[in-house]
Amino acid sequence: MKFSKFGQKFTQPTGISQLMDDLGDALKSDQPVNMLGGGNPARIDAVNELFLQTYRELGNDNDTGEANSTSIISMANYSNPQGDAAFIEALMGFFNRHYDWNLTADNIALTNGSQNAFFFLFNLFGGAFVEAKDSEEQTIDKSILLPLAPEYIGYSDVHVEGQHFTAVLPHIEEVTHEGEEGFFKYRVDFEALESLPALTEGRIGAICCSRPTNPTGNVLTDEEMARLAKIARRYEVPLIIDNAYGMPFPNIIYSDVTLNWDDNTILCFSLSKIGLPGVRTGVIVAAPEVIAAVSAMNAVVNLSPTRFGASIATPLVENDAIKDLSNNEIKPFYQQQAQTAVALLKNELGDYPLMIHKPEGAIFFWLWFKDLPITTLELYDILKEKGTLIVPSQYFFPGVDVSDYQHAHECIRMSIAADEDTLAKGIAVIGEVVRKLYDEAK
Amino acid sequence: MKFSKFGQKFTQPTGISQLMDDLGDALKSDQPVNMLGGGNPARIDAVNELFLQTYRELGNDNDTGEANSTSIISMANYSNPQGDAAFIEALMGFFNRHYDWNLTADNIALTNGSQNAFFFLFNLFGGAFVEAKDSEEQTIDKSILLPLAPEYIGYSDVHVEGQHFTAVLPHIEEVTHEGEEGFFKYRVDFEALESLPALTEGRIGAICCSRPTNPTGNVLTDEEMARLAKIARRYEVPLIIDNAYGMPFPNIIYSDVTLNWDDNTILCFSLSKIGLPGVRTGVIVAAPEVIAAVSAMNAVVNLSPTRFGASIATPLVENDAIKDLSNNEIKPFYQQQAQTAVALLKNELGDYPLMIHKPEGAIFFWLWFKDLPITTLELYDILKEKGTLIVPSQYFFPGVDVSDYQHAHECIRMSIAADEDTLAKGIAVIGEVVRKLYDEAK
Repeated sequence: MKFSKFGQKFTQPTGISQLMDDLGDALKSDQPVNMLGGGNPARIDAVNELFLQTYRELGNDNDTGEANSTSIISMANYSNPQGDAAFIEALMGFFNRHYDWNLTADNIALTNGSQNAFFFLFNLFGGAFVEAKDSEEQTIDKSILLPLAPEYIGYSDVHVEGQHFTAVLPHIEEVTHEGEEGFFKYRVDFEALESLPALTEGRIGAICCSRPTNPTGNVLTDEEMARLAKIARRYEVPLIIDNAYGMPFPNIIYSDVTLNWDDNTILCFSLSKIGLPGVRTGVIVAAPEVIAAVSAMNAVVNLSPTRFGASIATPLVENDAIKDLSNNEIKPFYQQQAQTAVALLKNELGDYPLMIHKPEGAIFFWLWFKDLPITTLELYDILKEKGTLIVPSQYFFPGVDVSDYQHAHECIRMSIAADEDTLAKGIAVIGEVVRKLYDEAK
Repeated sequence: MKFSKFGQKFTQPTGISQLMDDLGDALKSDQPVNMLGGGNPARIDAVNELFLQTYRELGNDNDTGEANSTSIISMANYSNPQGDAAFIEALMGFFNRHYDWNLTADNIALTNGSQNAFFFLFNLFGGAFVEAKDSEEQTIDKSILLPLAPEYIGYSDVHVEGQHFTAVLPHIEEVTHEGEEGFFKYRVDFEALESLPALTEGRIGAICCSRPTNPTGNVLTDEEMARLAKIARRYEVPLIIDNAYGMPFPNIIYSDVTLNWDDNTILCFSLSKIGLPGVRTGVIVAAPEVIAAVSAMNAVVNLSPTRFGASIATPLVENDAIKDLSNNEIKPFYQQQAQTAVALLKNELGDYPLMIHKPEGAIFFWLWFKDLPITTLELYDILKEKGTLIVPSQYFFPGVDVSDYQHAHECIRMSIAADEDTLAKGIAVIGEVVRKLYDEAK
């Protein structure tokens, strides 16, 4: 069968398709696999217990008859294209209660997960624009500006035609972490960013960052965010913040920062990392014109978003349980995992040129093997042979030509969501392989 | 904020956006509304009881511990991009058991509802194609061929750029229905179809029809389907069948026809019309290369499809309850509704030039007001003022320039899924308004 250009773009092997295939194959495999590659959140008993309890309650809240239980209502009816109205109402109350943003229901839309939100937003603000100039219409190609590479692998392929990203390479700063050496932190290179011709000449459609950053666990500082917001306003483009790991849920964030929103900011939330990735529910908080556009895209692409995740989360948002769960269970769990991973890595590779990105949040570690004799794509293959899955760094640079940027071939993303045994075994394999590589190159 | 061309296309008011807005507004309104406009399936008690029972069981099937209940597993884990593996396995067994199609898991993918499937498929097979000709690459614009207009309103806007539909106008045949006059049936005009320049010159990417047809309730005959399949093979394009109302679930189909599949056929199923529209779950059965393409699009657009609908439906597919429910509850319910609607319409407008499309399936009636003095878009507004919602016919002709096709302005789609009281009230309003229009024009 013959596929369109659109189809061929989407069916070419991509970084994310390789990742997802490996994930799927690993879970189907008979061999034991140290899965440090995926983005599935950890299994945390207290979290699952609350969801199961909520699930059961939704099947029994039928004081006015079986057909009125929330579970049936949410299964048996479409929502409107904006998403489940009860959940939007609950979110509005929640955000206004905790942040004083003065949101109305017109500021919130739901999507079938965060990835779906970014498919919409990056095509809304990137690609071909038709603009009037000197009383004539002209077509301008605009990009999404990623102020701090590396960035999330899933962004790469979402444009319906071509790729429209411009990324700024980071300042790399050596830092300590809890008094220890061997860590680094990426910082936005504002000088490079503010002098970007694409930005100053009107070829940027939006600025976007994930915070905490997938893949690095970096958390952009409040100062960096304020400066980005100011630049976005100056050039009349929105600032999109991918808050999938951020405040107030799942709140996997250890540095002392704040969350802000204004009508030039598009905040994207997700239920995935509180432990509900299977329900595919994303939340966008933005100006009404953006919400109207997302709703219209929901209608055409999906008719309306899925409702089950909304139903499960509504009571937890109404009574703040989602915040307590995040603060009391989810955040401490990953903080503990991060400490364990640091100790294991230091033990395996303390005497080698490993640098760990300062763990500030999210569920990943970003490891930098300085001057590794092979690329981390090659390292990925060796580790995969030995049953340990990680993701090589080169896929996390949308908008960057990585062919002559060595740093992009020296890092890996490693999930810390696995149980302690898997984490220890996986890190042991990484240690053994990486030590040998450095030793042989001496 | 400035939106891209893509964004502007999606945010322009469309037929489907108007429909969805009216639906949403009507449900929010304080005024009583006779909702004959939407596509929500009927509330059928026996259906909801089975779903609620299944829902509860999924929260309790935890013999090996709470964390192993199906509900938790499906909430707390991503599926792979192809969709929930257990549901795909169950569907494979179900189709092979009832149809001998010899499917493997590589023949089935899930999507976030049927609309999402058509967004993928119409962009995969319509739009710009790059093909080699005389050892040079050329770009060809290909359309989706709709062999029988009118067709589903939701197809209209799904192309990521422009519209790429070519539709063939129907033969209109006067027929009887259960011995009564006043009915018509659309037939494919094969002569026009087979001599279409777009088809013979290679500018068709796929052929598509809904069966039963939304909006008309027409069911293409086995002979028509066989002939379409043959044409599709001859021109090496797939035949896409939108089976959302068809066999074996929800099986809202009253004529005596069969369902076929081969590797040039793409069959699209949905859980919506068995009563689960909120779960947004669509099923595609097709050749492995199509399934691989859909899975890749799932990964980029959605990471992976939602799982809850799959979890609810898996046991019902495994034990054939979905088939029994369709045959014993859903089909008889709509068949009864259709009889009621015919009687009510005949009572209101029996002496007027109303023609009803022969009710052969789906949950809609398609009414033709021959030589009505106003367009049905104008009729829609009058009825809306009086609290009765229907959908005017002009939106159901993707690929047709309706400006000089009078028939496209003389019909309405009316849902028969409402309860009997609403149906009676709505049809009474339609009768009163339409009688007056005809009477005044005399």
